[in-house]
Order: sequence, then structure tokens, then C-alpha cells
Amino acid sequence: MKALVYGGPGEKSWTQAPDPAIRDPRDAIIQVDAVTICGTDLHILGGDVPETAAGSILGHEAVGTVVEVGGGVSTLTPGDRVLASCISACGSCRYCRGGQYGQCLGGGGWILGHTVHGVQAQYARLPFADLSTYKLPHSVTDEQAVLLADILPTSYEVGVRNGRVRPGDTVVVVGTGPIGLAAILTARLYSPSHIIAVDKAESRLQAAKAFGASATVRPDGDPLEIVQALTGGLGADVVIEAVGTPSAFELCTTLVRPGGHLANVGVHGKPATLHLEDLWIKDVTITTGLVDTSSTPTLLRMLEAGQLDVSQMITHRFPMDEFMAAYDVFGDAAHSGALKVVLTRT
Amino acid sequence: MKALVYGGPGEKSWTQAPDPAIRDPRDAIIQVDAVTICGTDLHILGGDVPETAAGSILGHEAVGTVVEVGGGVSTLTPGDRVLASCISACGSCRYCRGGQYGQCLGGGGWILGHTVHGVQAQYARLPFADLSTYKLPHSVTDEQAVLLADILPTSYEVGVRNGRVRPGDTVVVVGTGPIGLAAILTARLYSPSHIIAVDKAESRLQAAKAFGASATVRPDGDPLEIVQALTGGLGADVVIEAVGTPSAFELCTTLVRPGGHLANVGVHGKPATLHLEDLWIKDVTITTGLVDTSSTPTLLRMLEAGQLDVSQMITHRFPMDEFMAAYDVFGDAAHSGALKVVLTRT
Amino acid sequence: MKALVYGGPGEKSWTQAPDPAIRDPRDAIIQVDAVTICGTDLHILGGDVPETAAGSILGHEAVGTVVEVGGGVSTLTPGDRVLASCISACGSCRYCRGGQYGQCLGGGGWILGHTVHGVQAQYARLPFADLSTYKLPHSVTDEQAVLLADILPTSYEVGVRNGRVRPGDTVVVVGTGPIGLAAILTARLYSPSHIIAVDKAESRLQAAKAFGASATVRPDGDPLEIVQALTGGLGADVVIEAVGTPSAFELCTTLVRPGGHLANVGVHGKPATLHLEDLWIKDVTITTGLVDTSSTPTLLRMLEAGQLDVSQMITHRFPMDEFMAAYDVFGDAAHSGALKVVLTRT
Amino acid sequence: MKALVYGGPGEKSWTQAPDPAIRDPRDAIIQVDAVTICGTDLHILGGDVPETAAGSILGHEAVGTVVEVGGGVSTLTPGDRVLASCISACGSCRYCRGGQYGQCLGGGGWILGHTVHGVQAQYARLPFADLSTYKLPHSVTDEQAVLLADILPTSYEVGVRNGRVRPGDTVVVVGTGPIGLAAILTARLYSPSHIIAVDKAESRLQAAKAFGASATVRPDGDPLEIVQALTGGLGADVVIEAVGTPSAFELCTTLVRPGGHLANVGVHGKPATLHLEDLWIKDVTITTGLVDTSSTPTLLRMLEAGQLDVSQMITHRFPMDEFMAAYDVFGDAAHSGALKVVLTRT
Repeated sequence: MKALVYGGPGEKSWTQAPDPAIRDPRDAIIQVDAVTICGTDLHILGGDVPETAAGSILGHEAVGTVVEVGGGVSTLTPGDRVLASCISACGSCRYCRGGQYGQCLGGGGWILGHTVHGVQAQYARLPFADLSTYKLPHSVTDEQAVLLADILPTSYEVGVRNGRVRPGDTVVVVGTGPIGLAAILTARLYSPSHIIAVDKAESRLQAAKAFGASATVRPDGDPLEIVQALTGGLGADVVIEAVGTPSAFELCTTLVRPGGHLANVGVHGKPATLHLEDLWIKDVTITTGLVDTSSTPTLLRMLEAGQLDVSQMITHRFPMDEFMAAYDVFGDAAHSGALKVVLTRT
Repeated sequence: MKALVYGGPGEKSWTQAPDPAIRDPRDAIIQVDAVTICGTDLHILGGDVPETAAGSILGHEAVGTVVEVGGGVSTLTPGDRVLASCISACGSCRYCRGGQYGQCLGGGGWILGHTVHGVQAQYARLPFADLSTYKLPHSVTDEQAVLLADILPTSYEVGVRNGRVRPGDTVVVVGTGPIGLAAILTARLYSPSHIIAVDKAESRLQAAKAFGASATVRPDGDPLEIVQALTGGLGADVVIEAVGTPSAFELCTTLVRPGGHLANVGVHGKPATLHLEDLWIKDVTITTGLVDTSSTPTLLRMLEAGQLDVSQMITHRFPMDEFMAAYDVFGDAAHSGALKVVLTRT
Repeated sequence: MKALVYGGPGEKSWTQAPDPAIRDPRDAIIQVDAVTICGTDLHILGGDVPETAAGSILGHEAVGTVVEVGGGVSTLTPGDRVLASCISACGSCRYCRGGQYGQCLGGGGWILGHTVHGVQAQYARLPFADLSTYKLPHSVTDEQAVLLADILPTSYEVGVRNGRVRPGDTVVVVGTGPIGLAAILTARLYSPSHIIAVDKAESRLQAAKAFGASATVRPDGDPLEIVQALTGGLGADVVIEAVGTPSAFELCTTLVRPGGHLANVGVHGKPATLHLEDLWIKDVTITTGLVDTSSTPTLLRMLEAGQLDVSQMITHRFPMDEFMAAYDVFGDAAHSGALKVVLTRT
Repeated sequence: MKALVYGGPGEKSWTQAPDPAIRDPRDAIIQVDAVTICGTDLHILGGDVPETAAGSILGHEAVGTVVEVGGGVSTLTPGDRVLASCISACGSCRYCRGGQYGQCLGGGGWILGHTVHGVQAQYARLPFADLSTYKLPHSVTDEQAVLLADILPTSYEVGVRNGRVRPGDTVVVVGTGPIGLAAILTARLYSPSHIIAVDKAESRLQAAKAFGASATVRPDGDPLEIVQALTGGLGADVVIEAVGTPSAFELCTTLVRPGGHLANVGVHGKPATLHLEDLWIKDVTITTGLVDTSSTPTLLRMLEAGQLDVSQMITHRFPMDEFMAAYDVFGDAAHSGALKVVLTRT
């Protein structure tokens, strides 16, 4: 088969690779129907994720059709159309028993395209298939479903639910790349009164408006003033960090009100400064997290019910054999305006 | 009357001061029966709390007898024996309506001995008396009750409840001064399996044992190893910071397990480094907070029921006219072994 | 002044009554600008509420202008435009400290038009005015605000929040009078996937559709079948009882899924049969409750932000001197189609 | 092998039965080391559980040693000493993903000794073995562990946690058979101030005292008066029903305070009367439930840490070949004083 193979920092190719095979009774093999690229893939290519070995197939967000299942798989049969989630779950460790699949101690967690071969390929092996895939209803398209492999549950669980968005809240989303936009989209499920989007790029602020932000501002445009004007000087009920830099995180800590929540979603490579001399007295809750995908069945139900309009999220489409071009477009989002790019089987 | 008056950084005296008087219909005046000194008072004397003006009477933890009430006070009458809580509550602002009295926007919060005259005096004015005092049952002594003015609700609300201690948990308390010891005492109300106390001073580790710690360790004695040994390498379910230094806070962030809680109780004067490059993926919840004293009625019920043995907390007793000596003993805890000192009316 | 005076079972008149006066320092007097009638007022007139004495002025939902305040009122001044809430709160009892104002032990709770004179009058005395009134922003009209005196917080707190409606849920509302309609409206704040309205009256089912129900059914039209079809046979996540009869409650218990919530909002006069032989094993949570109005500030913020379209709720308008006619129209809702009727100062 | 075989209503025998065999890759076979009898087994023998077919082996609480595992079992190997839990979990259905194993839709739930052969036998097949068994630490004895198969998690999850027992609470436990006693034991993990036990049998009230009840009373001894005396007339914070009769349930509804919780644990065969005419206004939460055993790992940790003294729970011990005598003793608890009887391999 063909696959997108990581060749070490800066190196990748759409090339021939061995077909995957069942290795564990809980595995399934899918033929990939639609797959996307994540900012994390760019981090791997940038050399920031040393545990991903050269020679690995990348990718952790796909929709596919089951072609083979191991003897221990009980809920899938060949022909099933499934979402391949970014998180695999052994199902029996302490964390999996509590639905915290992202912290799986039994060999799961974020492994696809990270520590085992991923899904940017014509075929892929999915470990722990019963708990790591989700059968798709007919009415949900591949393009809709692939957004549930990572960014929608990540934004919803780690941003919106950890941040405890509630009706009437004032919410700030710092960073409006795909994750931040998905946070805006899913925050609206709880009917906040105001969603303020903060980003450096004007094009992303425009996208934020389209996804439902009620106000937008650049980081140097005094977001604190806007937040205070909307909240009688108090600060935001919920602030969602969707950038992953010290300065974005530190901005968030200045925008949250006493008693409010700061939910970090961004992937960080460096420490931030935590101004405890201001925050110790402020009753602030700060959360971090990797997605668990425990919300995936609910998000699927909402897609099916027409409650999540994700259509604007996919800006570019490619056949799978143009994978290298797709990476170029996605990697140059500043110019291409790319949010999510989808590659499909031809 | 006599009172402990702050004279500016480094200056204090037990001296003559004007008797307090009702200024607002919601005020009450008490004759102070028992009063204690808080580490925060030492911070004020150290010049770290500029909003406390020279000439202020210090103190925010007392038990007294009501001698006069304003026309708007409905639950107290002269002769009532009451706890004067460190937190005053207007009762009608957004935060007070939610029980978050520490964040009162209506003129309350921590004001006693901070922005208005405090209770280290023979008489004191208590603003918002209906919500800022608690009538004492006969069976609760002054010495027991005075510990509920600040340290017990602070440890319980900001440490134990924010940290969500649950039965079977492994809990670490970093810093075992009076607040840390009260955190150990009140954590036990939720039946954790292990409480590990961390402190530099051997005497404080001994006290921690007496209050119920199951293990003790110095910060340089590899607390992480102890925690990992008890938790199969996972880390602690709950870590409570009760020191207020960057290094103590940063130690806490290394001890908490994925999915665990870090509850900051310490009063910080400097920023800490938050290692988001490690923590972003760990599902950690970090909380800060000022006490609300919303738990005070419950803690009083438990004192009355004999469930909280606070007797070891008070190490030194003085008549009120030896206030200067009491400050010396409390301020030199390293040598005196003082935990809480109580001064009583003579 | 003129007022609607209860004359004993079946008797009422819009007649002369003494002007109200401040009796307690925490009282305020308002001139009533807009007022409405509640189904509970009909119960009083029906003789079902014996604690309401003949000679009482009825009514517990109004908007008015403050004309006088007692010496203990700190947040209001004459001229303020306020919502007079159905619940009064002493602010210092155990329940008020927890925000459960409806259960106030200090003389509050539901007292207006029940155990003290109400607001169906030109002027009214509001006890505990600081905690029992809400200042109105300019952009909120009297008609909008008066719906926040009772039905919106009741439906939202006792129905939607007690029932824990969550995104993606299937919700059933049994009974679509004003309270049930307000439950549909406020349930939507949490983005359920389906809201099924059950009522005997076709006109009310039409209203339910207009308020956002996704399906409607008569009690004899097999609501269970509809619920099961939408939920793969499981049952509803949340069922809200908004009728107040044994049969409606018992219907609710058959519609809720294992692990689901049944939130009772209806006012009951008779016991119901609880089929514990079926329910004991089903992980069901049943809640009852009187409104606390703790959500009123949030609902006001949402009205101001344009998030709650309550315009369809008011079907009839009268000047206050046509109060008798307004009762006739409201009391004959089956023919008049009345939801809420509003009377205004002339 | 020998097994306790149900022969239809009133009929049972300790007799020869076929050895169990692996039928599904997720099965494990254990040799039973210790097993106990549950009140539910008596219900089956009484003919109250028609879905249990004549010819079935009874029992759902055992400790054993793994002798064989299917190809889909990943966490067990022959020789492992395990707790066989009363609840089996498929691990991938909607309820199992949420930890609500008792409501498993994938073939699990309470099946052992109910719809498939149980564990009152020398050997037993355990379906879904990865999620339905718990490896035992050396320091936990068979007798301790077998109490975690059903009664401890049932009392803790369905009684104490559903009832939300909190420090300082007043708790009532109605019915002090083994489940009620376990509720008293596990309620104490949350440090309530008072636990009032209600039972008709003096011997059971004595047992309740030994397990930690602070007061005891017969149902006809005016439990309401006792509760009101301890709570200033309010009622109990939490009431746990551990009988399973309409009268016991109805008693519970009269004892709970406004805002309190009633947690039903009892197995009911008949409907109860729910006095909604009193309860609708009282903010009461009523819960029902089957155990999920989601707490079993935590309870095991607490057993290991010496926090749960269950030694008094086992009153009689038999070798397995005296199973018929054990049933006699357990079935005649009124005279034998039996709480739990344990049978062990010889």
C-alpha cells in the first residue's frame, strides 16, 4: 500500500509501505476512506516528538471501512464504516475504567501515528478496536466524521467541558486555529452570552466570527479591556487556551475572573510563568488535558441530529495520492487559509 | 481600650486605642474573649501588605461576646457568644449569593485587620455581622472555636475540598505549619488511604505525624519516590500546597498524578514556573483560593460532635496584655515550636 | 390604593386596600409597573392553599419602581426599577447561605401573595429587599422581566438544571402550560438533540412546537414509543414533569432511561404511585423542588444578551384596573389560549 | 464438579454439575476458593426471579484462582487470585464506557447466578473476565475480599455515594441487614456527625452499633423524633433505604430534610406511595440503582490500607460441601444471627 512515512526531522514521503496485519486479537484493519492532517503531525516533522521513530506512518484522524478483525473484537465486522479515533483505549486499566482513555495505562492513549503506525495510509491497523472506533450512521458524511477523530472532542472535552462553560457565561478563546474554532463551535452548545476570540491573524478572527464568536480582538488590541467591559470589570467566566505558548497562557491568566476557569488545550513545549502572587487569592481553576474521546458518541449523535455545523472547517480537499501537496497547503495556513484539509480514497 | 496597633513595617504595640462604635446598621460590636495571631499578621508587619495602613488594629481570628448591634442586624443580640470569622460578607453581591464570601464585591471579604480595624483588641467592630459571625454552642470552647476563624475553613475549603480528597486517595501536604496541619486533620474527614507530609523542619514533620500523616519526608528526601512507591508509580491523587513559595509549588506539580488535583493554599509573593511542557497532557487541575468560610457552620457542627480534635493545635496561651510576648513566641516558631498561640481576656 | 384581594375560596375583587408601609428595616416599597397571574393564584382561589388568609392581596410576579426603602436596605434607592421575585430570602439562614432561597428558614421563601400581601396591587411591600429584588437593565422590558419573577427560574432550576440536561440529550417535557413551555425554552440552552412535548391539548402542543419542541404527542398517543424510537429503546435522558398529577408523574417514570433524571416541577395535591419494583434497579434520579431564584441574575444577563426569546409567552395584556377580566381570561386558558397575561400601570 | 443447583422454586441441591468451559474469548475459568450467599439467592429460591431457570448454578460473590483464560483476555493468567464481582461488564457499550457496568447493554450486568451459571460451585466461568474480576493483593484475605463482590460496593455506591454523604451530615440507615451494616461502615468514610440506624430486630440494632451507628431506633420507636432532635427539626441530610418494602421507603421520605437525599438500595417487589403533595416543594433527591462495582478497585485499596474493618461481617463459616447447611443458617438469620456466611474450598 501507499502511506505517508516520516523519515526523521523534516522528512516525509508518500510512498510504498507494508500492508498492516492483525497482531493482537483486539486489532482491526481498516481501508482508509478519508483522513486529515493535524498540527501535531507538523510538530513531529519539526522533530519535537522524539518518541516517533523515523519510518513511522503518521496520522491519527481517519474514517475507514473495516476489512479484518481479530478474534477478540466483538463489536465490529468487516464492511463496517467507522471513525478511527486519535485515542486508543485498552478498556481495563484504571484510567480507561473511568473513561479517561487519553491516560490509558494498558498500551493505549495517543499511539496512532505517534508510537505505532498511523492512518495516513491506504490501510491501517487499529489496536483495541472495540473501544477505539465508532460505527458511523449513514447520515453522517466522511468529512463530518473525520473532524470527530480529534479536534471536536479535544475542544469540547479539554476546552469547553473542563472549562465548565455554562449558559450566560462570558468565554474567551485565545487562539483560533482549528482547535480554537472547534472550541467556539462547541462552547455554543452551552449558550454562553459572549464568546470573545483572540488571535494575531485577521483571517482567523474572521473565521472565528463565522464560527460564532461575538467579538474578536488581537492580543495587542487590549483583550482585557473588552472582557472587562462585558463583565462589569470582573473578567471572563471561562478562558480557553488554544495556542500552546507561554505568552498565550499568561494572557489567559489575566483575563479570567475570580472564581473562573482557565482550560488549557494548547500543546506546550516550554514552561510558562504562573503569577501566583496575583492568582493565589482569586479562586481560579486551571485545567490541562489530553482528549479522552469519551464525548465522541455524544458528538456523533449531535452531528446526526444536525446540531453541529462543521462544514466550514474543511477548507481544502485532495485525493490521497496528493498527500505531499496537502501537507504543503496545511503547513502554510497563513497564506493558504487552510483550516482542515481532507484526503480521500480514490 | 487596648489594642495591637500596627505602626508601619516592623512596628507594633499593645496600646490604647479608641473604642469601636457602630458605623453601619449591619455592624455589631463584640468584647473579645479569645484571639489568635496568623502568619498573615507577620506578613503585614513585614511590610508585604501595603493596603494595611499604619495605625490599623491587626487580627482576623477571634471569639467574643456581642455588646451592641446595629439596627439592620437581625440574628444577633447582646450577650451572644460568637465566632468572628476572618471573612466578612455583604450577602447580596454576586459572589456572596453563591457562597463565595471571600470574593465579596460589596465591601466584605478579608477586611478585618487588613483594610478595617481587626480583632486583636479588647473590643472590635464586625461589619455585616449577620453573615460574618457564627453563634457558638455551649459545648464548644473558645480555644476550639477560634481555630475556626481562619485556619480550619481555609485548609478544608481551599485545600481539601478544592483538591477533592476522596476515600482511598493518596494525599500529599507540602508545608506543615498550622495551615498544613489543619489540612491533614480535615483531609482525614474523607478517609484517604495515605497522607504524606513534606516539610523542611523535623519538628513540623513530628507534628504532622501527630495530626495523622501516614508518612513524612523532607523536600530533599525524595518525596516523589515515596509517592510513587505508594501509588504504583502514578503520583498523588491530591497535592496541597501550604507553603507559598515557587519551589514548594513546583514540587507539588511533580507529585500529582495524571488526572489529579493540586490545591494551592499558600500565600504567594512571587510567580512560579509552570511546566506546561510536561503538564499540558496530564489532565491536571490546579486550584487557588481565598477561604469563603462557607464551611464554618459544618465545621462547628463537627466540633460539637467531637469529630475534630484540634486540641494539639494551640501550643501557647497568654493573657491579652502579654500580646507583645505572644507575637515574639509565634514569630519565632522555629525555636518556640509554636503552632497557634491564643490570647484571652483577663 | 387598589389591589386584588382574596376574599376566601372563590372570592376575589379589585378593590381599595391600605397602602403598604415599611415594617422592617430590610423592606422596600415599590409602585407596581407590570404584574402577572400564576396558576398558583388559581389554586389559592380554589381554596387549596389554606395558609393564605381571606383579605390577602394575591400575586408574586411583578416589576416595579422603588419608592421607599428601610434603613437596613443597602443596594436599592428610590427610583430603581426592579424585578420583584416570587421568592424572598433572609440571606443568613442555612439554606439562604447555600443559595437555596426557596427553603429559607428566616421568614422568607414563597411568602408574597401567600402568607404576606402580594404584588397584584398598585403598591407592594417587598421583605428582605436586598436579596429579593433584582435591578433591571434598561434594555430589558417590563414584559420580559416579569417572566423572570417565577416561571423562567422555576423551569430552569427545578426542571432543566435539576434534570441535568446536557448537549445531545433526549428530553421529554410532560405538560406544556407556561411552566412546561419555559422548560422547553430553557432546556434548549443546553442543546439537547430532541425535546418531546407531551400534553392533552392540541393548542398547547402547537405552542410547544413554537417554543422549540422537536416532537409532540398526546399522553394517549404512545409517548413511550416515540421516546424509544429516538433513543434506540433506552428511554429519555431527562424527563420533566410540569403538570402536577399522579398520572403525569407516573408517565414520566416510564419514559426515563436507566441512569436518567426525572425532574418534578409540577405542584402536586395527591400522592403518586412509585413503581419501585421496576425502578429500584434502574439508576434513576428523581428530584423535586421549589424555585430558589438563584439563577435570576444569570437569566437576566441572558435576556439582556438577547438569548431568551420570551415574546411568545405573553398572550394577553390588560391595564391593571381590568384585573378581574384578566383573571377570567387566564382562568379559561382552554378557550382563551392564554399563556401569561400581563397587567400594567395606567 | 459439585455445585449449588437451583431446581425451581423452593428447590436446591449441592450436587454434581458439568465443569465450566471457555465459550467466548473473553471468558476465564476460576477454581472457587471462597463464596458467600446473598439475600437475592433466597429471592430466587422463593420463586421471585423468574428469569433464573431451573438447573442454574446460583451465586454471584466469590474469590477464586484463575485456571484458564480465553484468547481475548489480556490482564489475567492462570494462577492469578481474583475477586469474581457480582457485575460483569462488556466494556464497550454506552453504559460500560461511562463506568455504569450494572446497566451493561452488551451482555453483562448482573448475570452470574441469574441468567448464566453462578459461582456457588467448585469451578466457575466468568464472562468478560478483564473487566469483571479484580486481582487481589496478598495482604487481602479471601474472607475480606468476598465481601467486595457485592455488598460493600452496593452499599457504598448505591447508598453512600448516590446519597452524597458529606462530613458533618446526619445520616439515617433504614434496615440493618448486611447491606445496611455495610452502608453504615462505608458512610463513615465521609465522616458524618450522626448515623441513626432503624430496624425492627434488636439484634440487628446491636450490630449497627458495633458497625458505627451513633443511635438506633425501631421503626415504631419514633425515628422522626430522634432525627429532628439531632437536626434542629430539619430532618436528615441523607436517608438510605436498605430494606426493600413500601413501608420502609415511605418512612425514609418522612425523615429526609428539605434539600436532602434519599438513596434507595433495597430490592423492591411492590410499588410504594410517593407523597408528592408533601415532597414536591422540598427539594428532595431520590435515587435508585444497581451496583456498578466501579468502586471495587478503590475499596480494595482501602482494605489493603486497613481502612475497612469488615471482620465482624462474617458470622458463620463452612466448608463448601456443607452448602445446604450454610443456606439453612443464612436463611434463618432471625434465629441464627447470621450476617454473611462464607464457604471455602476444602
